[in-house]
Amino acid sequence: MSELRHDPIQKRWVIISVERGRRPSDFQLPREDLQEEFCPFCPGSEDKTPPEIMALRPNNGPPNSPGWELRVVPNKFPALMIEGGLEKRGVGVYDRMRGVGAHEVVIETPRHDHQMADFSVARLQDVFTVFQTRWHDLSRDQRFKYILIFKNHGRAAGATMSHSHSQIIATPVTPLTVARGLDSAKDHFQLKNRCLFCDILDYELEKQERIVCTNDHFVAYAPYASRFPFELIIIPRIHNHNFASIRPDQIRALAGIVKEVLMRLQLALRDPPYNFMIHTVPNVNAQPRRSFYWDTVEYDYHWHMEIIPRLTRLAGFEWGTGFYINPTPPEEAARFLREVVFSMDVE
Amino acid sequence: MSELRHDPIQKRWVIISVERGRRPSDFQLPREDLQEEFCPFCPGSEDKTPPEIMALRPNNGPPNSPGWELRVVPNKFPALMIEGGLEKRGVGVYDRMRGVGAHEVVIETPRHDHQMADFSVARLQDVFTVFQTRWHDLSRDQRFKYILIFKNHGRAAGATMSHSHSQIIATPVTPLTVARGLDSAKDHFQLKNRCLFCDILDYELEKQERIVCTNDHFVAYAPYASRFPFELIIIPRIHNHNFASIRPDQIRALAGIVKEVLMRLQLALRDPPYNFMIHTVPNVNAQPRRSFYWDTVEYDYHWHMEIIPRLTRLAGFEWGTGFYINPTPPEEAARFLREVVFSMDVE
Repeated sequence: MSELRHDPIQKRWVIISVERGRRPSDFQLPREDLQEEFCPFCPGSEDKTPPEIMALRPNNGPPNSPGWELRVVPNKFPALMIEGGLEKRGVGVYDRMRGVGAHEVVIETPRHDHQMADFSVARLQDVFTVFQTRWHDLSRDQRFKYILIFKNHGRAAGATMSHSHSQIIATPVTPLTVARGLDSAKDHFQLKNRCLFCDILDYELEKQERIVCTNDHFVAYAPYASRFPFELIIIPRIHNHNFASIRPDQIRALAGIVKEVLMRLQLALRDPPYNFMIHTVPNVNAQPRRSFYWDTVEYDYHWHMEIIPRLTRLAGFEWGTGFYINPTPPEEAARFLREVVFSMDVE
Repeated sequence: MSELRHDPIQKRWVIISVERGRRPSDFQLPREDLQEEFCPFCPGSEDKTPPEIMALRPNNGPPNSPGWELRVVPNKFPALMIEGGLEKRGVGVYDRMRGVGAHEVVIETPRHDHQMADFSVARLQDVFTVFQTRWHDLSRDQRFKYILIFKNHGRAAGATMSHSHSQIIATPVTPLTVARGLDSAKDHFQLKNRCLFCDILDYELEKQERIVCTNDHFVAYAPYASRFPFELIIIPRIHNHNFASIRPDQIRALAGIVKEVLMRLQLALRDPPYNFMIHTVPNVNAQPRRSFYWDTVEYDYHWHMEIIPRLTRLAGFEWGTGFYINPTPPEEAARFLREVVFSMDVE
């Protein structure tokens, strides 16, 4: 069973994961490349993953058989486990709890040779709709304070499987970075009675210099204080705190802008490794009635998607300070991505 | 000129560094390996670095000529620049200041083939003594709120040169991670009238299971909530807030334990890439008289050195949450390092 341990100096929780167990001697070996010889995510290998949680099967075959278009399965080496209670307790000067949570894998396509940038808009729509379905289902569990949907693409971005997939992790605490974002949004709202993200979006649309592309419902831009070259935000134009609440027409627009952004990145940077994360509200069902985060979060928080191409390496300065050095101004990154010659019909 | 930009959501500063300028198209190329063909840090190439700030020359040769044992030079591509004022101002909804600071390189040996784990204890003593000298000199500049001393070893740890060196960066703001550590220490002191780090050290020495090695003045241990496999802390047994104030006999003991820890890591993990950072107090000369951080920092903060082997990759979960998944419990990492068969005479 993995456990959560609290760092009393940085005040953050860490998952010590024995299930994903790397023995110390594993690190002596040269690190393996992405697993390519045998792929447990390909059709025909359904018995190589834990039994599926849900799947899209246009021809209605039985679960855990081929014929699917998209499949959600529990992670075989989960960082957090679904069973049991948290058993929070002190350990000498420290604090710990059991590693309770959920860790799911969304296998986004049966095709081993297609990455997300290659997907049709219709498939991307299915992917984001499935994300919503899983978010709603997991949010019924009151032990889960936060549900993160994210993707690791490419080995440098932490992917261990090359077959296109995303992951969903539900955590028993509200993570530090999330709490900090919620705090900032709340402070701004209390001071100005406006959403911080709406204010930023207005300013970016007025300035235009960091905008990459837009559609009726969404805007993609490079943030002013980008930590990394080509860091991007995709955010809905209309204020909304919860990704899981957006309508099918908005999902379609989201699929469209994600397709466009990923194609621009692929063409501009030659298929860079990247991570994306969906930043949305914590799980409302797991919050106490009058929680600090919950009473105005509908007004002060604004969901968005963050994309980080992994082109630079973190070094001692970043680890020592939490400060970042970015060698590419976001204005230049945005201009470079805007200028990619590109048509949505290009394969 | 690089600039500092403030992220209003995560409340952190980012250095947008035009001098280190990577044009967007640079990222299309396969990334270069460590520079090996020509080394500007080797003796005979003194004119390939900016003029030296200081050097150890046992035979007293002229500056910027061969014959040195250790050399400190300004970084040729500095993240922050020494000249001028901060010019803090708002930019629409955002905040910025000029990238004022210092960025120095400590070339620790004339030998291209020696890494820090290969150094004699006497050389390590010289390195740490030079760190102190540079800290004291930089701390006279009231624009510098914090001075970080750190090392990137190996390409995966962000090093771009293989010749053994460390770096010193002085920043015009107190960085986020530093401020959070200071806050935690202060909170603990106010509640208990004891140092948080002393409490942790007492507990670790009592439990022993996470201790790697010790000497008369220092203890090396794997922290309870380690984010990464083989993350280590080296901390003085006697409370002291400021690295730059330790005495020569303590520097000698520090050199001894650093040598032992680096050799254990090298033998156990076959020369892993790593970062180290020295966590010490902010610059006292740059703080207002009655600053929040300064009035009790002598009692509540405790300097220490952090070593992070870079064996795992950050992925979407870590970026999205600030939460870490560590596959190797620190108790196992510490035991593995303790059991390395090793003698200080081994080359």
